[in-house]
Amino acid sequence: MIDDPRLTPLAASLPATVPFVGLEAQERTQGFAFDARLGANENGFGPSPKAIQAMAAAAADAWKYPDPENYDLKDALAAFHGITPQNIAIDAGIDTLLGVITRLLIGPGDQVVTSLGAYPTFNYHVAGYGGTLHSVPYAGDHEDIDRLIAKAHETAAKLIYFANPDNPMGSHHSADDVSRMISAVPEGCLLILDEAYAETAPADALPPLDVTDTRVIRMRTFSKAYGLAGARVGYAIGAAPLIRAFDKVRNHFGMSRVSQAAALAALADQAYLAEVTRQTIAARAHLADIARENGLRPLPSAANFVTMDCGRDGAFATDILKGLIARRIFVRMPGVPPLNRCIRVSCGPEADMAAFAAALPDAITAATENAEIQPA
Amino acid sequence: MIDDPRLTPLAASLPATVPFVGLEAQERTQGFAFDARLGANENGFGPSPKAIQAMAAAAADAWKYPDPENYDLKDALAAFHGITPQNIAIDAGIDTLLGVITRLLIGPGDQVVTSLGAYPTFNYHVAGYGGTLHSVPYAGDHEDIDRLIAKAHETAAKLIYFANPDNPMGSHHSADDVSRMISAVPEGCLLILDEAYAETAPADALPPLDVTDTRVIRMRTFSKAYGLAGARVGYAIGAAPLIRAFDKVRNHFGMSRVSQAAALAALADQAYLAEVTRQTIAARAHLADIARENGLRPLPSAANFVTMDCGRDGAFATDILKGLIARRIFVRMPGVPPLNRCIRVSCGPEADMAAFAAALPDAITAATENAEIQPA
Repeated sequence: MIDDPRLTPLAASLPATVPFVGLEAQERTQGFAFDARLGANENGFGPSPKAIQAMAAAAADAWKYPDPENYDLKDALAAFHGITPQNIAIDAGIDTLLGVITRLLIGPGDQVVTSLGAYPTFNYHVAGYGGTLHSVPYAGDHEDIDRLIAKAHETAAKLIYFANPDNPMGSHHSADDVSRMISAVPEGCLLILDEAYAETAPADALPPLDVTDTRVIRMRTFSKAYGLAGARVGYAIGAAPLIRAFDKVRNHFGMSRVSQAAALAALADQAYLAEVTRQTIAARAHLADIARENGLRPLPSAANFVTMDCGRDGAFATDILKGLIARRIFVRMPGVPPLNRCIRVSCGPEADMAAFAAALPDAITAATENAEIQPA
Repeated sequence: MIDDPRLTPLAASLPATVPFVGLEAQERTQGFAFDARLGANENGFGPSPKAIQAMAAAAADAWKYPDPENYDLKDALAAFHGITPQNIAIDAGIDTLLGVITRLLIGPGDQVVTSLGAYPTFNYHVAGYGGTLHSVPYAGDHEDIDRLIAKAHETAAKLIYFANPDNPMGSHHSADDVSRMISAVPEGCLLILDEAYAETAPADALPPLDVTDTRVIRMRTFSKAYGLAGARVGYAIGAAPLIRAFDKVRNHFGMSRVSQAAALAALADQAYLAEVTRQTIAARAHLADIARENGLRPLPSAANFVTMDCGRDGAFATDILKGLIARRIFVRMPGVPPLNRCIRVSCGPEADMAAFAAALPDAITAATENAEIQPA
């Protein structure tokens, strides 16, 4: 299809694409529904019952516009983190926040650094605002702090994207290493520290919040441990002048009122969060066992998923992935070598873990047979 | 506060602003809650009970990401309008859709035409992407089709914004006049036809949908007649190449899953929509009576609000507005002369109409006394 001729040159240069094909789109294509939903690092344990109640209660008020200032949620988050509301920007998920921060800092000619195989949606935003993306390889299964910083210096980058814990590998760096990284951010550059998986990380992975530090902006979400991916609520923590700039371009009435209520209730129910996090970490150990029992190598994970090294190349891991999908298990895998020797499986309730365990042996067998009939 | 020095020149040039101060922000500032919520053209009759049920039912599934393709809702809307899903883009309200279409077509140096006093959020997006805005005056209480088209020719504009029915005046043009306007859109220009108030408009205000026509994109919403402003669901109808371009830059996972369910259920309950629309139109007549009884002139309205000419200047209307707000009635008014001789009051349930009727006489009396003590 030919593009509309009225698009800006930048828009015309972009593909019409989705960074992730949705589960539902896969189901429509393949003609059957998945039995286990383990591909998007959702939280199958679900949100707090209090958040569900809050959504149901807020539904009757859905005729009212949301509070564009997100005042109540910002206030609660500020109290929770011991910072001020002026250090918090709220929007419809980290995806939206990444879009806004990219828009604020990046235009054609600006340089951005990330890791090769890191979050595709960030790359999508960088391309969408005309930035030039530089990717540095992982060091083993970890994002390479030193090379990220070196590349930022080398390219005079305005943004660095770094996730801790990492997605898709599940690895993490210590708070000390992350603090050291923040200290090394070049003048004129901003580090985006994506902490979507903060709640399942070891305590020593998260540097203390310092909202006077203008070198870093930190991203958190209600999509993972809080179990509210479908509500679309994320927040950024940063220095006040940077946070204030979000008000220059953000969609002020972009948040669902029902989602605001959900996040507020979920945040208040820290007991539930602690219990679900405990279950998630138990499921993580269970997933690692399942991997080992099937001859795969589970990577140590600080997130709500386990990335499993399938021991051969990307084609082999892809075959296992396809075998799992054919057996109605929704999983995903890293998109770039050498990370793509792995599959990535989300933690979930026992029934989902069992369904994965039941499907995995046959998927591996089929992939192995397929590999053996290929020319060496 | 000094801006962050890393902002793009464009971002640095923008104020940190909200196009509309939210009701809740006003309540926080003034220290009391409103008794009647009649300032944002919300639908106080509320959404369909089936939509409320659908939200409550979807809440438990809020741990799942939304379908990024909005497939089910797109499919239902396509069937409803007798078009194809390829002609529909869905996003978090018309505000978001206006942002995306502006981003796709407008960059620094591009020209945009609107009416002086029309929707501020559109102007916000144009500024946000560096476009140059040209405003033409209303012709009386109507947007001036001929001048909009003439200005688009004169400036070689890429976008024209036009709302029918109009907000903030409530006036409308006939379908024939709008069709004539579409035919006159200059080559290389796109008409944004904002039909947020379509459902309360007379049938003869809406030209037939023609999705082969590349000169126009039409915006519809679940925020008004469907009573789901807080859910943030809007959609654009246009030619397939233009609609497809939304996928280049939109936030694919930007829709709340609960909101998708709400819109689907609301769309399916056309009987409820018809009944609420009937009540809204009755409230419109009631509001017009209240205005007349108080010596204000209600403008004919095709929308879910009545704009009332207070008969003097902007200062006088502002005084009446302030008097209403002090009496706990949330209303708004047009921001630009000569439209700002008016106040704008949303339709709502009888209790809200009665609260407005009770507060209005004293608000007018106070404004009149204030006007009389000013120098002439």
